[in-house]
Amino acid sequence: MSTLAELNAASHDEFVALLAGVYEHSPWIAAAAFEQRPYATLAALKNALVQAVHAAGRDAQLALLRAHPELAGKAMVAGTLTAESSGEQQRAGLAACTPEEFATIQRLNAAYNDRFGWPFIVAVRGSRGRGLSRSEIIATLQRRLPSHPDIEFAECLRQVHRIAEIRLAEKFDTQPHRGRRVWDLAEALAAFSEPPWAERGELTVTYLSAAHRDCARLLARWMQECGFDSVREDAVGNVVGVYEAATPGAPRLLTGSHYDTVRNGGRYDGRLGILVALEAVAALKAEGRRLPFAIELVAFAEEEGQRYAATFLGSSALTGDFHPAWLDQEDAAGVSMRDAMRSAGLPATLEAIAAERRDPAHYLGFVEVHIEQGPVLAELGLPLGVVTSINGSRRWTGEISGLASHAGTTPMGRRRDAACAAAEFVLAAERCAAAEPDAVATVGMLDVPAGSINVVPGRCRISLDIRATTDAARDAVADAVLAELEAICVRRGVSYTLTPTMQAPAAPCAPAWQARWEAAVAALGLPVQRLPSGAGHDAMTLHRLLPQAMLFVRGGELGISHNPLETVTDDDAELAVAAFATLLAHLARE
Amino acid sequence: MSTLAELNAASHDEFVALLAGVYEHSPWIAAAAFEQRPYATLAALKNALVQAVHAAGRDAQLALLRAHPELAGKAMVAGTLTAESSGEQQRAGLAACTPEEFATIQRLNAAYNDRFGWPFIVAVRGSRGRGLSRSEIIATLQRRLPSHPDIEFAECLRQVHRIAEIRLAEKFDTQPHRGRRVWDLAEALAAFSEPPWAERGELTVTYLSAAHRDCARLLARWMQECGFDSVREDAVGNVVGVYEAATPGAPRLLTGSHYDTVRNGGRYDGRLGILVALEAVAALKAEGRRLPFAIELVAFAEEEGQRYAATFLGSSALTGDFHPAWLDQEDAAGVSMRDAMRSAGLPATLEAIAAERRDPAHYLGFVEVHIEQGPVLAELGLPLGVVTSINGSRRWTGEISGLASHAGTTPMGRRRDAACAAAEFVLAAERCAAAEPDAVATVGMLDVPAGSINVVPGRCRISLDIRATTDAARDAVADAVLAELEAICVRRGVSYTLTPTMQAPAAPCAPAWQARWEAAVAALGLPVQRLPSGAGHDAMTLHRLLPQAMLFVRGGELGISHNPLETVTDDDAELAVAAFATLLAHLARE
Repeated sequence: MSTLAELNAASHDEFVALLAGVYEHSPWIAAAAFEQRPYATLAALKNALVQAVHAAGRDAQLALLRAHPELAGKAMVAGTLTAESSGEQQRAGLAACTPEEFATIQRLNAAYNDRFGWPFIVAVRGSRGRGLSRSEIIATLQRRLPSHPDIEFAECLRQVHRIAEIRLAEKFDTQPHRGRRVWDLAEALAAFSEPPWAERGELTVTYLSAAHRDCARLLARWMQECGFDSVREDAVGNVVGVYEAATPGAPRLLTGSHYDTVRNGGRYDGRLGILVALEAVAALKAEGRRLPFAIELVAFAEEEGQRYAATFLGSSALTGDFHPAWLDQEDAAGVSMRDAMRSAGLPATLEAIAAERRDPAHYLGFVEVHIEQGPVLAELGLPLGVVTSINGSRRWTGEISGLASHAGTTPMGRRRDAACAAAEFVLAAERCAAAEPDAVATVGMLDVPAGSINVVPGRCRISLDIRATTDAARDAVADAVLAELEAICVRRGVSYTLTPTMQAPAAPCAPAWQARWEAAVAALGLPVQRLPSGAGHDAMTLHRLLPQAMLFVRGGELGISHNPLETVTDDDAELAVAAFATLLAHLARE
Repeated sequence: MSTLAELNAASHDEFVALLAGVYEHSPWIAAAAFEQRPYATLAALKNALVQAVHAAGRDAQLALLRAHPELAGKAMVAGTLTAESSGEQQRAGLAACTPEEFATIQRLNAAYNDRFGWPFIVAVRGSRGRGLSRSEIIATLQRRLPSHPDIEFAECLRQVHRIAEIRLAEKFDTQPHRGRRVWDLAEALAAFSEPPWAERGELTVTYLSAAHRDCARLLARWMQECGFDSVREDAVGNVVGVYEAATPGAPRLLTGSHYDTVRNGGRYDGRLGILVALEAVAALKAEGRRLPFAIELVAFAEEEGQRYAATFLGSSALTGDFHPAWLDQEDAAGVSMRDAMRSAGLPATLEAIAAERRDPAHYLGFVEVHIEQGPVLAELGLPLGVVTSINGSRRWTGEISGLASHAGTTPMGRRRDAACAAAEFVLAAERCAAAEPDAVATVGMLDVPAGSINVVPGRCRISLDIRATTDAARDAVADAVLAELEAICVRRGVSYTLTPTMQAPAAPCAPAWQARWEAAVAALGLPVQRLPSGAGHDAMTLHRLLPQAMLFVRGGELGISHNPLETVTDDDAELAVAAFATLLAHLARE
């Protein structure tokens, strides 16, 4: 067992020796991190090690990957693994494979090595640190085998850093207890899912379903257990907990995120933000501390718009933006929202819902923690990021119409090829968005209906999704793309339709609140990484009422979301709780 | 009534006066044609008029279109039409519209004028010269209303030239009798179609269906009636007629095309080439002439590969390329080709089929007349074109794989967008083909499977079809496109699959035979337009055995084919018969 103080006081050789075995056969990484002593936090040390590998270039990175033994490979069988690898592979049960499992792993290992030229690497302890099963390991190997080599290379490096993180936690005898509680609560919540998704082991919790009601009850109980002074369910099903201030009548800090999910979604989208705030309040309660402001945590009942076309329903009730017509909407089974609310025991009246509107005079602001749902933090090797703005967006669907004709008999100069025009449009959208910082444009739908190999496409369906940190930037990209589309179609003698289907204003984070998140991240010894949010969040709705700011937590698997593979590590969740607690502590001293 | 001699001898003013009314209110067209006297043929005069309009530029062309009265419009009701228009509109029955028809035409006329800025123009006498029905005229107006303005502008000019052609035929009292017989025989053949296509008024004749057998019987009867000395059905269902030479044992000229159709096909694809040769022989017979060579006309039973995957079956029997495995193939109903042949009374043995192989020593060569199935001749305003080569082709299908991700949260620089890569591929294919004379490349299938507006495409299905006049040119384009695809995918970090599905060698026309078609076209007073054939034809198979060359006939409706709209005019069919007869006459003198 070591301490940061020992490490900071160590000579170069002692420093490298203290970190021996953290990175497999690669003492150069610790050596590079020596230069940046002293380390205020373990997170800072880990970041220095990650950035040392980032900076080392591809040859050194490849050597690092190749320094790893094969999973359940010859080295394990021969007993020539490093002590660290040997212990990990044994704990993962890889030494106890059945002959079939062993043969499968050998076959996959060989195919993997053939394809990539380095051994398959996975942190067998997993994102919770308690170990993957043999079948999970085999499934991961199978899933990653067809990856693009660049993607797989980066993923292996991330797994190497995760292995190092787990080894460091053992060396420094410090475990992410709060992060693990967040992880375990997210797993407990994920036990509730709707049929038929539940039967398939998938997670689907839509507004006011039985699984959704179970989640609400569990969240309310957890809020009570961890020390919230009052817990109630509001008129739309939001679960609201208040942790009172040191003095009555003090203003409140509003926080929260949503507990509904998309169909076959992940465990952290929305829920992470509820559980991180829950743990931060639990820490205050455990220490018996009260702040100069109250904390109001809202677990929003609806954000995803899956059962009814009423996205951000939960947060809309707080801002007075609940649309009366929503009550009459019917779900796919013909059940109106009003009836669903009544069945759930909610009042289902516009008066009761309107009464939920918050008076901004009583609130300091709104903060939300959320999983990034994108690859930025994962690629940078950073656990946390500070959101600058929730992007404004516009969407369209449409079609380009040319003239279908014989692929053999229509000369190139005489074609009115709808797919060629669409291809130019796709690339124009990409180019225009790339020219605007933090803007994105996507043609997600592209389809020549009933296309034939030997017919020049007469029609091509298209879509367009544009997002940017400000409405002005979003509209500038949109104007540029639409002007290019017009020019492309005129030049090619084809026509097009493009119908707007959605428009949402940008919600820039309040500078003072964004600065509070930045200070909290810096206090953990981590670099401050700013990034926009490309996805919409409850903070976007609260933006109408209060200053708001968001903290993003790195997602595993390159940030995949709306997918069962969505994941965070216990260590990253721990840092999120710590950042939230730091923001509270800083705010209390202002 | 005028004659070409009078016209050639006329002064400028007399010349213009003689052609008054041929082009509506536009004497400048005749004036432009005056410069190029004398005219050896009416076809040469018509071509000069067409080229005068082509050369006049868009303003003069627009004025020409605007000089035309609306169909069943105010001018007709008020009786202020030109004599020509008045007579034509009356013959089309437009003066006898029901109130509903009249109201429909007025509404469509107004919409058409709003959209394009000129009146709807259609040759109401149609492609056979006997007049469209009111419902056909209304359907044409409805069909053309959504056209692209450039396409519609060119189509109106073509209709103006067709109107002029019909008016000239009356002025010069010369009707396309042989062309009309070709047209009428094609219509008679089209009376046979398979259920359920027949019930829907559509034309489908696949190998050895009842409709196909009826066609064979009718073709055999026509060959006998028009004077072929022997007519037989061969072992695969080809109908073979021989018109003997002046002397026994003389070599034969082989000609023909196919009488099967695609599903819901046109009346001329294949059949035109049979009927044009039939009429040319009928003309010889009527004059009692024998040539130094015999003429063997083969109506090929199968070219389209619709019922069985045995494309070019009919011509393959003549070259000894009938695949034995074809006999065991089953159609969609499970009927083997062998059983279908037996039911049709064919021998259904490989021996009988092999006996059909022609000995090239007995033949001069193979010539085929075919509808162009493309827009080249229609756009140039030329009735006939001489084929230089039947293009070689290669085809692939495949898929580009990137990484599906959130359209909002994945920065532009971090995407692996399969659709963007596919878009570059589409444009690369277009660019590479355009750089090679007479080559074409088409991406006819382009599809992001289950694409969503807010998801960066992770997959995109593609196809590729490349054709060129020589195998070397085809392969050069293919190499260039595939190299670009590789580079695009490497640069974008995506992967692709591309599987070859077809490869056919080019069949360049034999220079001496191509020159014979060129001489025949020139003898009609028409410019010689050379063009490659992008589609495959029976001549491609005969190419293995004999020198071959093809003549293309202009298709209406921009050359649309494999479609019920496929059409040729009686005048163009007349020119095709004349060209065929001229080729025979020239060959007889060689």
